[in-house]
Amino acid sequence: MASSSSYSNCPCAACKFLRRKCMPDCVFAPYFPPEEPQKFTNVHKIFGASNVSKLLNEVLPHQREDAVNSLAYEAEARIKDPVYGCVGAISVLQRQVMKLQKELDATNADLIRYTCNEMPTTTTIITTSQRGSERGTSSIAQSSSFYYHSTWNNDHP
Amino acid sequence: MASSSSYSNCPCAACKFLRRKCMPDCVFAPYFPPEEPQKFTNVHKIFGASNVSKLLNEVLPHQREDAVNSLAYEAEARIKDPVYGCVGAISVLQRQVMKLQKELDATNADLIRYTCNEMPTTTTIITTSQRGSERGTSSIAQSSSFYYHSTWNNDHP
Repeated sequence: MASSSSYSNCPCAACKFLRRKCMPDCVFAPYFPPEEPQKFTNVHKIFGASNVSKLLNEVLPHQREDAVNSLAYEAEARIKDPVYGCVGAISVLQRQVMKLQKELDATNADLIRYTCNEMPTTTTIITTSQRGSERGTSSIAQSSSFYYHSTWNNDHP
Repeated sequence: MASSSSYSNCPCAACKFLRRKCMPDCVFAPYFPPEEPQKFTNVHKIFGASNVSKLLNEVLPHQREDAVNSLAYEAEARIKDPVYGCVGAISVLQRQVMKLQKELDATNADLIRYTCNEMPTTTTIITTSQRGSERGTSSIAQSSSFYYHSTWNNDHP
């Protein structure tokens, strides 16, 4: 039929996997093209097709692509690392933020110590070190809201 | 019976939710205590009880607590943010790492520029700036392996 979408002829990856007819209004079709079968296999394995369908219906149409992509990312991470999934990456990134913040603080302290000990204070020097301190403070404030609180947070590689 | 676990008398949060008898060998009981009902409700809503059970059986017993905690974290994040889930936190943390790295590079450059322009090079100054550069390089190398590749990565708040 002329009114049918292209999905009628070539079922989306979800319908192909679930062995069902892919209808023109299929909720999966726009986000699970037949050429990416693994994307659906992964989200189905981790979340289940029914949960993915429910979630897609809960979010606005323009947000669905982002929702599917983030689910696919989480699913792939969980398949690769069944224990930590993508939470492992959060843990590593949090430690990296803390490490960088510490390095930045140390470098700023070096700069301040150096300028105080080696040279009389000038306008240029004060501007440089103040800029560094301001950067540091804003980064600490940002990082605190995303901290993953867990007993294993510091031990996970 | 004396041999029964305490779970026989007080069903775990999973068995209570699923309205089934909590047996002494219940796979959920050690990780879903009755006093934390929301933990199971969340993972059930996002992953489904069957998928959680499968995953628990796939990992080693000593890894199960971490696996459940990371699933609970992911589930809570997805309920709070149905579009991005905990991938939103990864995106923010990645940008924070890049921002901190840039700040560290800039501070190191300030330090080097300052020491070159204002003072003759001394052993102390070289040591300080080199330490900063080494820190910076190692951090860049670490961050690259966790980058979340997505078209919306830079736009997500």
